[in-house]
Amino acid sequence: MALKKEHRIGRHATLLVLTDDRSEQEQITNQLNWKSCSGKVGSMESQKVVAAIETAAKQQGIIKDNVYRETHSLYHAIMEALYGITRGQMQLGSVMRTVGLRFAVVRGNPYEDETEGEWLAVAIYGTIGAPIKGLEHETLGLGINHI
Amino acid sequence: MALKKEHRIGRHATLLVLTDDRSEQEQITNQLNWKSCSGKVGSMESQKVVAAIETAAKQQGIIKDNVYRETHSLYHAIMEALYGITRGQMQLGSVMRTVGLRFAVVRGNPYEDETEGEWLAVAIYGTIGAPIKGLEHETLGLGINHI
Amino acid sequence: MALKKEHRIGRHATLLVLTDDRSEQEQITNQLNWKSCSGKVGSMESQKVVAAIETAAKQQGIIKDNVYRETHSLYHAIMEALYGITRGQMQLGSVMRTVGLRFAVVRGNPYEDETEGEWLAVAIYGTIGAPIKGLEHETLGLGINHI
Amino acid sequence: MALKKEHRIGRHATLLVLTDDRSEQEQITNQLNWKSCSGKVGSMESQKVVAAIETAAKQQGIIKDNVYRETHSLYHAIMEALYGITRGQMQLGSVMRTVGLRFAVVRGNPYEDETEGEWLAVAIYGTIGAPIKGLEHETLGLGINHI
Amino acid sequence: MALKKEHRIGRHATLLVLTDDRSEQEQITNQLNWKSCSGKVGSMESQKVVAAIETAAKQQGIIKDNVYRETHSLYHAIMEALYGITRGQMQLGSVMRTVGLRFAVVRGNPYEDETEGEWLAVAIYGTIGAPIKGLEHETLGLGINHI
Amino acid sequence: MALKKEHRIGRHATLLVLTDDRSEQEQITNQLNWKSCSGKVGSMESQKVVAAIETAAKQQGIIKDNVYRETHSLYHAIMEALYGITRGQMQLGSVMRTVGLRFAVVRGNPYEDETEGEWLAVAIYGTIGAPIKGLEHETLGLGINHI
Repeated sequence: MALKKEHRIGRHATLLVLTDDRSEQEQITNQLNWKSCSGKVGSMESQKVVAAIETAAKQQGIIKDNVYRETHSLYHAIMEALYGITRGQMQLGSVMRTVGLRFAVVRGNPYEDETEGEWLAVAIYGTIGAPIKGLEHETLGLGINHI
Repeated sequence: MALKKEHRIGRHATLLVLTDDRSEQEQITNQLNWKSCSGKVGSMESQKVVAAIETAAKQQGIIKDNVYRETHSLYHAIMEALYGITRGQMQLGSVMRTVGLRFAVVRGNPYEDETEGEWLAVAIYGTIGAPIKGLEHETLGLGINHI
Repeated sequence: MALKKEHRIGRHATLLVLTDDRSEQEQITNQLNWKSCSGKVGSMESQKVVAAIETAAKQQGIIKDNVYRETHSLYHAIMEALYGITRGQMQLGSVMRTVGLRFAVVRGNPYEDETEGEWLAVAIYGTIGAPIKGLEHETLGLGINHI
Repeated sequence: MALKKEHRIGRHATLLVLTDDRSEQEQITNQLNWKSCSGKVGSMESQKVVAAIETAAKQQGIIKDNVYRETHSLYHAIMEALYGITRGQMQLGSVMRTVGLRFAVVRGNPYEDETEGEWLAVAIYGTIGAPIKGLEHETLGLGINHI
Repeated sequence: MALKKEHRIGRHATLLVLTDDRSEQEQITNQLNWKSCSGKVGSMESQKVVAAIETAAKQQGIIKDNVYRETHSLYHAIMEALYGITRGQMQLGSVMRTVGLRFAVVRGNPYEDETEGEWLAVAIYGTIGAPIKGLEHETLGLGINHI
Repeated sequence: MALKKEHRIGRHATLLVLTDDRSEQEQITNQLNWKSCSGKVGSMESQKVVAAIETAAKQQGIIKDNVYRETHSLYHAIMEALYGITRGQMQLGSVMRTVGLRFAVVRGNPYEDETEGEWLAVAIYGTIGAPIKGLEHETLGLGINHI
């Protein structure tokens, strides 16, 4: 049942959002026969962050958009990543702050045992701060869910 | 006032907890004249995670242990990282889960403008799950604070 | 001081929102000389859920709308029910989700001892999910307060 | 993708914890070829509530105890039900309160479309209050997750 | 329905915990025919803070200890004050911090209209910080409830 | 490292928002060579409360508006005060409530030891309630941060 060291899906998604050159991570994605997508979103509206990740994951085929269980799994992984991004209240503009974020979604099998099946990792990294350029610091979040 | 790209202190701390070979990151720490420390902690008691990070940061000279404002800054950075680790309620054993974590604390100046002074980044990465070996997935948290 | 088994006001309110035929519950309401009202609300805006319940309870005479202590009691009972509905952050549209809900408010005396006086129960049941028909699951919340 | 009216798994689990005579609900469980289990737990320690539900679900074969994805699904369904039970902070003894609870776990397929597969519902109902007999009111929580 | 300026019960309770000489406030308490009590508690265990306030309020006759609705009202007022004291997670020792607090409970009628009846105010003031003398700062919380 | 009794910055800020005649407190501000500002804000939008305090503190020179670390310190002190004001979810209009508030920001050195440097206290006091005049009660929050 153990996590396979080379299959740490959360670490993989995090490196995708942290590195400028994603080719090494994308090569691993391909070797493992995993799926991944990346994107960017900047907003004061938290729903736009959720929507940007959901849209990217559906359009790039990470999840099937007509199967609710896949949307449900992704939604909760995004929510969990947003706990890390927002640290206390899942609000942006309504507490006078804005974000500029990169995100990655990875779908794969992190466990040695095949019966554990596929899981999703959502990593988000960027800046959070006042709605004035430069008044901001880094922020990071990771969500993991079974699919 | 902008964040300096090569000085992204949160990204730096996160890479320290994600990479097996920390020598590259530690070289950067030295070049920038920053300070950093790393450690491990596994527990069902959330206070032990807090204590392990505080103790490491004090013993390795990242913060001065007799200056409260430094302890206060570190404490809130740890709390913010724990929001990412715990995602919803900052509890471990009391909601029947346990963690096995690596952490890194980095102290440095991430902004171009010198008047922005020093900041702390606390990154935590590892596994969270049921108190049974293998019933766990990855988790990650990052906290940033001015010092 | 004990709760009277036949006077379990929260159970009563919950059965009102779960059953298609409310006549049995409404008969109990009348026998006990309690007051109750029911209604429906669907929205992405959490304030509309609060407003719909408050309005129904005032218009149908469950609480007096010119006595603040009654509004205050109802408001906190609604908030407590919404913790169950939203499970983590009391937000709907701002985290990209919507609800379709039935609610019931019951006012009565659940305790054996008369000095315990009247209490309110707010039960809410329905679906929560993505703003796309069918991408949703059930959700339930119950709030209880003295009045 | 729609929820099937007769397959509302959350409503079913809630009726199991609310009714004194469970035979009607259990008959439905059997007809639909679903699985369900019930139990009781009283404690000031929140982890005992989690453990009681996990143990019952594993021992009665609702989930496979050696497959992490099933434990993970159940764990989050329990957590979501506990948001409804605790309404604000997932703590019992540490905020000086205790619970006496009944719970039910149901595993089944609530959606018309077969590709939506199996889901879990965890319903919890009982009393919460001061650690003195009678100083308590009702509380209810429901968690739903894909498995 | 308006709050009477001289009857601001929350302000009154807060001044009771902030002033070294409580005689002026206590004189007002008597003139208005209100009831109030004060006390101190220091602990790393959050339940001890709750218990200290409940015990003081019952022993000094602010609430009747055999009427649950009064205990229920006080409990929620204490919880609300603790949100201000703990600011994010209602935990002390489990996130490695301790408190040294003074508290006051006031029972009275803050509204012009008599039908608004009696309300409770719980004010708490003191220090919160690391479990090392001096590594602490001030903290304050206020809870208000109808009784 | 201890807090100096006459330098309790949080108590000072709280008295500034509670007293009608601020001259005594302002005299202390001047004697101690501290800085303080006060203001009022009423809104159903939480971001307006944040913005009003930030704007007042910058315009009246309590913090430097072009130094991010000062804005960051103030922002978190405001957030902490809002935990006390909102008690559970940092939302106003989205949970159908509104506030009428006075606030004070104080910058000074509360500790005996000079190396502890300057700290900020943000106190907020006023009413919270339904968006109908009079359906409201008092609320109070205090946030403290190093700067």
